[in-house]
Amino acid sequence: MTIKRLEQQIQFILEIDKLKQVVRQTYLTDSSRKENSVEHSWHLAMMAMVLSEHANDPDIDIQRVIKMVLVHDIVEIDAGDTFLYDEKHSESKINRERAAADRLFSLLPEDQAGEFRELWDEFENRETKDAKFAYALDRLQPMLHNIITKGKAWQQHGIKKSQVINKNSPMQEGSALLWDYISGLLDEAVEEGYLSE
Amino acid sequence: MTIKRLEQQIQFILEIDKLKQVVRQTYLTDSSRKENSVEHSWHLAMMAMVLSEHANDPDIDIQRVIKMVLVHDIVEIDAGDTFLYDEKHSESKINRERAAADRLFSLLPEDQAGEFRELWDEFENRETKDAKFAYALDRLQPMLHNIITKGKAWQQHGIKKSQVINKNSPMQEGSALLWDYISGLLDEAVEEGYLSE
Repeated sequence: MTIKRLEQQIQFILEIDKLKQVVRQTYLTDSSRKENSVEHSWHLAMMAMVLSEHANDPDIDIQRVIKMVLVHDIVEIDAGDTFLYDEKHSESKINRERAAADRLFSLLPEDQAGEFRELWDEFENRETKDAKFAYALDRLQPMLHNIITKGKAWQQHGIKKSQVINKNSPMQEGSALLWDYISGLLDEAVEEGYLSE
Repeated sequence: MTIKRLEQQIQFILEIDKLKQVVRQTYLTDSSRKENSVEHSWHLAMMAMVLSEHANDPDIDIQRVIKMVLVHDIVEIDAGDTFLYDEKHSESKINRERAAADRLFSLLPEDQAGEFRELWDEFENRETKDAKFAYALDRLQPMLHNIITKGKAWQQHGIKKSQVINKNSPMQEGSALLWDYISGLLDEAVEEGYLSE
């Protein structure tokens, strides 16, 4: 080990501190403020630990899912958070995020840069069983927060049930059971008036 | 799977959102605000992914270290964060945290409650190779933040180098290399006047 290798690693560790300042549209469960992308990422990792038995594929590698969700938003340090329902910015999202991945992961020693990039690409491509389950968690968490805050973020952005279903139903590929569960809560949200039909 | 099991899991997931509001004494690297315990936990998990090669024991189970650091502060939802250098509150810390662990982990289905409690106990007891490395990361991160912010939290609390060494040198049991590295930075902090001798 050269000292240069350790210094590159520390540089990356200090740089990713900036993700704590990337604010998302999702509110904390007590509605007091919006959460940031680090808080969201930790929450997904905890959900991976707790909910893995509900993946469609019983052979998912939960350790890999945990790493994937911990890493998946780091690109937002440069690219910012893109609101799921923001069609305009969603178009440019992938190019902004790829440039961010190029810069950020290359702070690491080459072998680790490759490992992190692979995890991020896998998450983005959503083709493997692990990425599909990680994606399901990434969709589930903001819906849960919206339900518990009586649709706070949905209402601020005038989001309708059809949009929620359209954008989130692909999570079925990772977990049909969790999609069924949250679908039931979406119906209740409409009945109770938190989400417009 | 009964629906009761899933509902218990979701209840736990919503409850731990409160950890995002437990503020620590450590500042973000740009000094703009103090970080919270969720941000700290995510950062440790990323450090585990990046720095595992520097553990004293090459056979550490890095997946287990990641889970341990993700879970290690959940008890602070009830017990609050105890500043490392706060001798007065450190005495009551273990009892407050055990009561918190009893309440919080028991929100989960029994098998998972046991798994989480085991991870937390292992971290606290600091006897296994995995727990020793997790502890080293938990000590390293706030020191790095202090160094990058020119000793902001140290100075606010009048912390001296001897206290920093006294409280943090046990991290050598997890990683002698990382302790050597940070010791060098502590010496520089004294030279540059961020940390009093």
